[in-house]
Amino acid sequence: MKKFILASASARRREILSHIGLEYTAIAADVDEITGLPDTPADIVRELAKRKALALSDKFDGDTIVIGSDTVVCMDGRVLNKPKDKDDARRMLKSLSGGKHQVYSGLCVTDGEKTICTHAVTTVKMRDISDDEINAYIATGEPLDKAGAYGIQDKGGIFVERIEGDYYNVVGLPLEMLCSILSRDFGVSVLEIIK
Amino acid sequence: MKKFILASASARRREILSHIGLEYTAIAADVDEITGLPDTPADIVRELAKRKALALSDKFDGDTIVIGSDTVVCMDGRVLNKPKDKDDARRMLKSLSGGKHQVYSGLCVTDGEKTICTHAVTTVKMRDISDDEINAYIATGEPLDKAGAYGIQDKGGIFVERIEGDYYNVVGLPLEMLCSILSRDFGVSVLEIIK
Repeated sequence: MKKFILASASARRREILSHIGLEYTAIAADVDEITGLPDTPADIVRELAKRKALALSDKFDGDTIVIGSDTVVCMDGRVLNKPKDKDDARRMLKSLSGGKHQVYSGLCVTDGEKTICTHAVTTVKMRDISDDEINAYIATGEPLDKAGAYGIQDKGGIFVERIEGDYYNVVGLPLEMLCSILSRDFGVSVLEIIK
Repeated sequence: MKKFILASASARRREILSHIGLEYTAIAADVDEITGLPDTPADIVRELAKRKALALSDKFDGDTIVIGSDTVVCMDGRVLNKPKDKDDARRMLKSLSGGKHQVYSGLCVTDGEKTICTHAVTTVKMRDISDDEINAYIATGEPLDKAGAYGIQDKGGIFVERIEGDYYNVVGLPLEMLCSILSRDFGVSVLEIIK
């Protein structure tokens, strides 16, 4: 029987795994998220997912699978991380209003011997959001701890017209891709995950 | 200050509205969902959403807004409702495996004077699902009360490769569309909804 570790402090990622029934331990991986990063959003999230997963290498014992993930929002080639403050959140939401952006999540799954790193992209179309609506949304406190300053799974969902890709990738963890990797590369069947 | 009534027994719809912060009362509308239905999925879900909303017409008092919704899954022109039993769920999931299907949700918003009915369509791409996986999923009990025999917001999410359209429409209530109608046609601003 395999044990699973989610190398993440994100409440959203934890909720996704808990919700489908997977039993796991969550451990925040303390990694450098600033220096030596590659140039493209896809390479950045893969690298950070890998750093998080490999930071827990002292947990590898042959039966443990560590899952790392990292998410960024990308608008017109610019990477949006978590906003620094309310003004930063306001700028981000104004730039996302009415347009399409991409959400990149990197995923790294490793048991210490085999390491699979990949990523998923989902396009999100936001409706026009007025300044009053942006201020009301920021007043809820929700945007401040989220890449791109919104949460599709929370109140921010009312601004999302449509997406193209995996929904859970926007929340922060590409769920179908994770389960397929667990099954194909690590011999963990769906039966064990959703039981 | 407006009052809101959700004309639905669906726990999923209730959760969506509660989660964004809207205060409402949920009342299951007892309507005929069988006879006199139109032919196309879009017309069917609009008609049923309207029947549900108007069934609560005794609640109209000038300040009350009633929201009706209905969802069906459509595969190759065939409408899939909730499965009758496990065998029916198995047939539905086998037909959805590996392909694309459409989820239609009808939406009817009315205050007794003005009535707005519309619908949304989201395309869902499922990955290939093996017979063992289908059986494991049915054994969780999740498919039996859901149109199309899966819940994207629950364990069924692990089978969904991608969607094109509104995620919440697949769950059962087109959220962005609802909030836009409330704002545009009934003068209920986002500030009142997500406060």
